[in-house]
Amino acid sequence: MAGRWSWMQMARSEKPVVAVDIGGTKIITAVFGGDGAVLSRIYCLTLAHEGPARVVRRLNETIGRAIDKAGLKKSQVAGIGLAAAAIIDINRGLVTEAPNLPRWHNVKLPSLIAGEFNLPVYMLNDASAAALGEHRYGAGRGLNNLIYITVSTGIGGGIVIDGELYNGTDGCAAEIGHMVIMVDGPACNCGRRGCLESLASGTAIGRMARERLAHGEKSTMRTLAGNNIEEVTSKTVARAARKGDVLALDVIHTAAGYLGIGLASLVNILNPQMIIIGGGVSSMGAMLLGPARKSMKAHAFKLPASTVRIVRPALGMDAGLVGAAGYARQMGSKTA
Amino acid sequence: MAGRWSWMQMARSEKPVVAVDIGGTKIITAVFGGDGAVLSRIYCLTLAHEGPARVVRRLNETIGRAIDKAGLKKSQVAGIGLAAAAIIDINRGLVTEAPNLPRWHNVKLPSLIAGEFNLPVYMLNDASAAALGEHRYGAGRGLNNLIYITVSTGIGGGIVIDGELYNGTDGCAAEIGHMVIMVDGPACNCGRRGCLESLASGTAIGRMARERLAHGEKSTMRTLAGNNIEEVTSKTVARAARKGDVLALDVIHTAAGYLGIGLASLVNILNPQMIIIGGGVSSMGAMLLGPARKSMKAHAFKLPASTVRIVRPALGMDAGLVGAAGYARQMGSKTA
Repeated sequence: MAGRWSWMQMARSEKPVVAVDIGGTKIITAVFGGDGAVLSRIYCLTLAHEGPARVVRRLNETIGRAIDKAGLKKSQVAGIGLAAAAIIDINRGLVTEAPNLPRWHNVKLPSLIAGEFNLPVYMLNDASAAALGEHRYGAGRGLNNLIYITVSTGIGGGIVIDGELYNGTDGCAAEIGHMVIMVDGPACNCGRRGCLESLASGTAIGRMARERLAHGEKSTMRTLAGNNIEEVTSKTVARAARKGDVLALDVIHTAAGYLGIGLASLVNILNPQMIIIGGGVSSMGAMLLGPARKSMKAHAFKLPASTVRIVRPALGMDAGLVGAAGYARQMGSKTA
Repeated sequence: MAGRWSWMQMARSEKPVVAVDIGGTKIITAVFGGDGAVLSRIYCLTLAHEGPARVVRRLNETIGRAIDKAGLKKSQVAGIGLAAAAIIDINRGLVTEAPNLPRWHNVKLPSLIAGEFNLPVYMLNDASAAALGEHRYGAGRGLNNLIYITVSTGIGGGIVIDGELYNGTDGCAAEIGHMVIMVDGPACNCGRRGCLESLASGTAIGRMARERLAHGEKSTMRTLAGNNIEEVTSKTVARAARKGDVLALDVIHTAAGYLGIGLASLVNILNPQMIIIGGGVSSMGAMLLGPARKSMKAHAFKLPASTVRIVRPALGMDAGLVGAAGYARQMGSKTA
């Protein structure tokens, strides 16, 4: 992410903002200059199992370091945008729950960070941030409506309607991963069963591969995982599939079929111009998106299925970070 | 529907409009005066099996009769609003397909009607019309966002976002009945499998009851249907359930459970303030809505589940008709 984002160039005279993307696995913090330059960038692990108090401490340390590294003082920063993989109450500034952040219940994350820096803090869901990023500066520029889906450990989403981010009544809309597509299906991280996330996420791909290996199916994944089936993850599946492993390809095909069913429901409900599929698992590319598109077309009505374009993000893994920065700017200018 | 709608009283000086609600079973046509009075109202069967040409002829005859019956001439009418149970291409004025209207493929319904009357004709999906009706003049007045669901032969939907009807890119959004909730589930009228409609519509309730009766389960439904299981419909199930029939109650409970799963997906995706459940099957009332609410809460995240109110329509079975009239007025004033 060495580039400058054109939107930020438009706001050249503005102060820098801090953007933080908080996922179940990693936290990325960056300071964006008023001219769009990335002034600093820090990557660290979330270590979510340590619980919210420690993660918040780590967040505050990292934000402090990112400001230092950018050669700035707190007072030179306009605000902080947080994109969190969580069910957010946007009106009360609360992380209410988070399937991939254990023990986060009603955590007032923005206040806990604002208190440390004395800066305005704006929080939104990470996939909503990515939707905003891609709409303003990425693959969806100029569109009226689009859906962003992140397929990684879990599955998240963001919705743009009439050119604006749609947050819903409380700010927790677009939990696309938790559409039930298979009544009484596999257990999901959210505590329920048969959600799209339990069938098409990276976690699901790893689980399906391990189950089939345990049933004795042949595959190079066994060797790739050092003969320990429990070590097989979606990354192992992707590696094996790229080399033509039949079982790995079939597992991805199955997950893509479920993803396509979820896409079809979204297409039937929202009739969007575009669906952008990001997240680590989407880097499988055509291997995943090809059969997902086919499954979507088989399960949706012809008219909306022929309209929607299903594409990869233009901002790659930075969509959420760029969206969080844009959100901080947008909200800051509203309240200023 | 003897009343006057307050919105129409606001437009007292305006010309009358014709509204038509075209369902898979029946067609209701009404003329609304500029002062909101219902000047005439005609009910007829759709007889959809006769195919689109005959249904269009019947529609034109009925609209003509409704105008006559209201004591008006064509030139005294401002326009015609059509609410159709179909997948509509709103930009091209096409009924593209319709699960419950056999052989309707790319029918230019508005032109076929406009040609007969030389009046502007505005078409939208029937459940979207009902959503608009309930939002402007019914249970959802003043709300920012809501979802209307009709549960009858099929399941349809309408979405209001930011106080406006959300039609999607082509005008075919809100096909809520065709979310897949059970991969490889029962066959649906749309040609696919496991859609919400195939598990929670009136058609599904009838089918589930017949299947269980055929398996030999005891029930008063057998007698109610003159000992011919094939005659059992969702109406038979409702009658038996009201008298405490255990099998009938269990079938409704099962369908309500599926309905709740569909509601939960909508609540997770759109985080609405309200969901209004109309349509013939919804007249089962608490028997259906009680377990549907419970199932929704079990399958949705806590925050959006606690926000959403699930209610019956205020306009009853007339929501679509009133919405179609309102839509004709709204579009007429835009193009005037």
